Amino acid sequence: MYELGVVYRNITRADREVTDQLAALGSATVHEAMGRVGLMKPYMRPIQQDVNVSGTAVTVLLQPGDNWMMHVAAEQVQPGDIVVATVTAECSDGYFGDLLATSFMSRGARALIIEAGVRDTKVLREMKFPVWSRYVSSKGTIKATPGSVNIPIVCAGAYVTPGDVIVADDDGVVCVPKALAAKTLATALAREANEGEKRDKLASGVLGLDMYKMREPLAAAGLKYID
Amino acid sequence: MYELGVVYRNITRADREVTDQLAALGSATVHEAMGRVGLMKPYMRPIQQDVNVSGTAVTVLLQPGDNWMMHVAAEQVQPGDIVVATVTAECSDGYFGDLLATSFMSRGARALIIEAGVRDTKVLREMKFPVWSRYVSSKGTIKATPGSVNIPIVCAGAYVTPGDVIVADDDGVVCVPKALAAKTLATALAREANEGEKRDKLASGVLGLDMYKMREPLAAAGLKYID
Amino acid sequence: MYELGVVYRNITRADREVTDQLAALGSATVHEAMGRVGLMKPYMRPIQQDVNVSGTAVTVLLQPGDNWMMHVAAEQVQPGDIVVATVTAECSDGYFGDLLATSFMSRGARALIIEAGVRDTKVLREMKFPVWSRYVSSKGTIKATPGSVNIPIVCAGAYVTPGDVIVADDDGVVCVPKALAAKTLATALAREANEGEKRDKLASGVLGLDMYKMREPLAAAGLKYID
Amino acid sequence: MYELGVVYRNITRADREVTDQLAALGSATVHEAMGRVGLMKPYMRPIQQDVNVSGTAVTVLLQPGDNWMMHVAAEQVQPGDIVVATVTAECSDGYFGDLLATSFMSRGARALIIEAGVRDTKVLREMKFPVWSRYVSSKGTIKATPGSVNIPIVCAGAYVTPGDVIVADDDGVVCVPKALAAKTLATALAREANEGEKRDKLASGVLGLDMYKMREPLAAAGLKYID
Amino acid sequence: MYELGVVYRNITRADREVTDQLAALGSATVHEAMGRVGLMKPYMRPIQQDVNVSGTAVTVLLQPGDNWMMHVAAEQVQPGDIVVATVTAECSDGYFGDLLATSFMSRGARALIIEAGVRDTKVLREMKFPVWSRYVSSKGTIKATPGSVNIPIVCAGAYVTPGDVIVADDDGVVCVPKALAAKTLATALAREANEGEKRDKLASGVLGLDMYKMREPLAAAGLKYID
Amino acid sequence: MYELGVVYRNITRADREVTDQLAALGSATVHEAMGRVGLMKPYMRPIQQDVNVSGTAVTVLLQPGDNWMMHVAAEQVQPGDIVVATVTAECSDGYFGDLLATSFMSRGARALIIEAGVRDTKVLREMKFPVWSRYVSSKGTIKATPGSVNIPIVCAGAYVTPGDVIVADDDGVVCVPKALAAKTLATALAREANEGEKRDKLASGVLGLDMYKMREPLAAAGLKYID
Repeated sequence: MYELGVVYRNITRADREVTDQLAALGSATVHEAMGRVGLMKPYMRPIQQDVNVSGTAVTVLLQPGDNWMMHVAAEQVQPGDIVVATVTAECSDGYFGDLLATSFMSRGARALIIEAGVRDTKVLREMKFPVWSRYVSSKGTIKATPGSVNIPIVCAGAYVTPGDVIVADDDGVVCVPKALAAKTLATALAREANEGEKRDKLASGVLGLDMYKMREPLAAAGLKYID
Repeated sequence: MYELGVVYRNITRADREVTDQLAALGSATVHEAMGRVGLMKPYMRPIQQDVNVSGTAVTVLLQPGDNWMMHVAAEQVQPGDIVVATVTAECSDGYFGDLLATSFMSRGARALIIEAGVRDTKVLREMKFPVWSRYVSSKGTIKATPGSVNIPIVCAGAYVTPGDVIVADDDGVVCVPKALAAKTLATALAREANEGEKRDKLASGVLGLDMYKMREPLAAAGLKYID
Repeated sequence: MYELGVVYRNITRADREVTDQLAALGSATVHEAMGRVGLMKPYMRPIQQDVNVSGTAVTVLLQPGDNWMMHVAAEQVQPGDIVVATVTAECSDGYFGDLLATSFMSRGARALIIEAGVRDTKVLREMKFPVWSRYVSSKGTIKATPGSVNIPIVCAGAYVTPGDVIVADDDGVVCVPKALAAKTLATALAREANEGEKRDKLASGVLGLDMYKMREPLAAAGLKYID
Repeated sequence: MYELGVVYRNITRADREVTDQLAALGSATVHEAMGRVGLMKPYMRPIQQDVNVSGTAVTVLLQPGDNWMMHVAAEQVQPGDIVVATVTAECSDGYFGDLLATSFMSRGARALIIEAGVRDTKVLREMKFPVWSRYVSSKGTIKATPGSVNIPIVCAGAYVTPGDVIVADDDGVVCVPKALAAKTLATALAREANEGEKRDKLASGVLGLDMYKMREPLAAAGLKYID
Repeated sequence: MYELGVVYRNITRADREVTDQLAALGSATVHEAMGRVGLMKPYMRPIQQDVNVSGTAVTVLLQPGDNWMMHVAAEQVQPGDIVVATVTAECSDGYFGDLLATSFMSRGARALIIEAGVRDTKVLREMKFPVWSRYVSSKGTIKATPGSVNIPIVCAGAYVTPGDVIVADDDGVVCVPKALAAKTLATALAREANEGEKRDKLASGVLGLDMYKMREPLAAAGLKYID
Repeated sequence: MYELGVVYRNITRADREVTDQLAALGSATVHEAMGRVGLMKPYMRPIQQDVNVSGTAVTVLLQPGDNWMMHVAAEQVQPGDIVVATVTAECSDGYFGDLLATSFMSRGARALIIEAGVRDTKVLREMKFPVWSRYVSSKGTIKATPGSVNIPIVCAGAYVTPGDVIVADDDGVVCVPKALAAKTLATALAREANEGEKRDKLASGVLGLDMYKMREPLAAAGLKYID
């Protein structure tokens, strides 16, 4: 948060196997498993549709209108990472395009999460490099003032520490602290386990009111039916 | 609007045949036929593309961060209904996902209109359950405080009474009061009737200025051409 | 900007060949070539995906909730033009739909850029008439008060003079003054020329840090690596 | 909601004495007494500070950029009324200034609530005519298309029927349906009655945790203290 | 608009006497006199209350997060000027505080209009240096990239040429092109002239309906009264 | 961030003397001294004007529409603290009013910073209890679901650890981590020290261009003067 002009080279990443399994569970299930914390603000939107991804965070703190640190971050990317970037002030500029995406992909990055703007979105979709951003903008950036790489940051309201797990899909972006990743996976899998059964029941016409035994507590809370 | 903790079980729905014909006409034509009232605010956006739908409203008043009433509403849904939900305060939480959609579909619901957030959007598109919402968010909700079902509500600036016709497509969401449904359909069909002819003329190069005889009123209003 | 109730019939358009070549370069490259000025605000969004277009501007100044001037503008459209419209106050109404699009297409218009709302978006996509707008709304408009056609306007923060080049794609909308069009094209082509080589290098794993020789200036700016 | 071009001359107003007592209670207490419904969206802001007001609603449905109906509404105002106005689409224009305020005051109006813009705000403050609006804007309006006066409207998310009680202060604007006014007043007064005692206790250092007996339910809900 | 890195030293300013008289008329009257064009977007808000000002524009084009050009602009200020500043992209940073205000005041500047953020707002109010801005923010800025001074700019949707008249008050900010200043003043004074008489009539209870002879056109437009 | 249902009773607070001296320096100077990090988003606005405050943070994580934890927080407040509260999702409800303020004041709290809504704003101003919030809203809240007190939180984009220093004034809200408080104070005082001299020079007509020796670097950056 508070160190400017530094790059941490050795970060501890969440367990790879745990990280990878979280993608399929999706941001909603993972967020539930976390106890409903860790979600980025809903203004973070994907530039593509129907893509689920998870990975370990390489964090970037950028300066307004300045994407210099994105190039510094590229060197710190390892296969399976997701770059998570934010700016010291609100900025809609296009910090990221097809050239940086090419570089990130060659390093093994899986996605970019950025609380700012991106550009070349058509090409990024063609390249299959998924991006969640606050803005889309053609506006380019300068390279004048250092920020930092791999320090803890706040991105779209979520606190992200380097190496944390990021889970992103059409519904949003969740950060799972690496210390909680294994437990979150276990909880999420357990949640998922009985979803199929629930879905079948609901599809057959059983009401949630009955399946979840809600009628009594609703009556206790005062709900009244009027014919 | 003002009754909390109640569920009206017997509501009068707009005529089915009239309701069903309004989908194909689309929200813009229906809105014109209404005299340009009844439109929800343009921040209500579809999670899917190129879907037109109409149906009769089952209304839901929700509490902030609490989707209990969605389960109560499911029981009140009849085939051909569209659930229209709003919250007593602005809230971006994901009140609705694939399980509730399964339940709603099993009851015959055609769509959800919600002035709040939804999640599982990828699965909802795969299920072909259309949704118009203000937000998309992974954030789940609790089940603690009753709201109401089938009372008049305000959703995204439109006043919706249970049983009213809802028409939704890529352009937005319109509410047609059931008492006005037949007349609105007639007006909309009449509007639509001569659209084909107009389109052909315009496609052939005839100008709207001439087709609509606008040159004289424009001159009367002071419009001047400068070479 | 300041003349109401006038239509300029004879405008000077940017060179056709120059104009047409700018589409493929895209708004980001063109905006860079302009020195990072001339971009419309990022709230201007396309109703379609993956479309690039360029053309010469026919400008329209509209009144709130009144699309009369769109019909007047149609007559001034020549093949290769893009209509650029704004309103004297912020307005989300749907000023443009499939009938006007039919008329514009029959005149040879390539696209519409409008700082207001549009409707019939599904049909517009089917017609392959590209639109960038601030809003989508079913709300129709009246025809009561003249604005102007082919005067200089401000659209979404960009100053547009009739005949200027408009370049629009998924990343945004740029206005290139006609006097700068040829020079901008040359600069953009030069920029583009070595992008392929850069992309190959980055794809092979060369870092931007090395390719752009950033390590020394970063160190000079005080960047520190911590192991 | 759905009738355009009409003015209802004879409306039933909420009881005057009840109406007048609600001002001092304030929007927050009244909103609580209503069961937390009836509040306008928080984007409705006062142009003045520290003013509380209540009155009976004269409703106005306006067209975008057109304030004709404000003049029509003036004639319908009786002493003790508050004019509540909305537009058929979102519009920031300045529909109201010092001349209309002079007219409204001469009829006995107590305030204006408008989901649009106002102007002459400095003079309005000097005149002591209180206004709650969504926008402030110098932009004037035309007089071309009729809307309606004294039909039910939706203003900033609240459904307002002519003659309902409006309570407005620095915290926001609440609508109390006339049928609920007496009961709401009674509930609000009861709420207010023991506020003084509570305030004294809290001021003396008694904690809400103890005064409201929250410690047990918090523990039951799982709250844990960590030293 | 399109020249970066330049400072125009000799600009033609609007007539001083005309400029000075426009302040008292206020932005709403001046905007009406302009034919309802030239207004900045309503998100431009004053940091003080009840201040009216007019002056001649010194324009500044800034880079994101970079206030270098504000210092360059100070040298170009002459007594009676108002500095009008915008950024090449949306930015909320605090570009201006008490030191720059001290410098501007010592040069005779009357106010600042900036489509970005300012800080030290309490001190600025104490110094009686009026400011209209889009944001208030403590965030400082760098001095790294030149923009321009005294080129035509777009500020909050208004096109401003150096030397134009700026009129600002609680209702907003209007730009009057210098070529139109004298005519605008004459029109505004004429408008103002009969406002007193109108106000007296309205205060005495005469309705706008009668004073403006609206009853007939309203009936012709179809307005109906219902008892 | 990630612990729900816990209250930390023993937190380490920043040094009192250091904390108290930061108020007078103001958020802009402190933010500069921090290296331009730690600022909350500019949508956090004071409900009062011209108040500067500093104090040590007691943090609160709230649930949507639920202010239960505010009462829990009251017990943890010590003289000189500022309560800093956020919600697990965006919510505009009025979480705080005059009764809670009475309780907080009796414990010695100096202010409230809340990324949500507050109410009773007129009374809060009269009580001289300063508040910075995102919203003002009459809407009340329930007491149903525990959050946490004195865990690290993200409030309006700033990461706040219990005991950190909060500095708030008309320009915004800054968080100074307790470990950096002394150094930040020293830097801020040094910055402040020569502000008086600078101000005198600027007031006497010396330009920032000369005082800061900017002419040479501006020329080097390519700035050109045109007569």
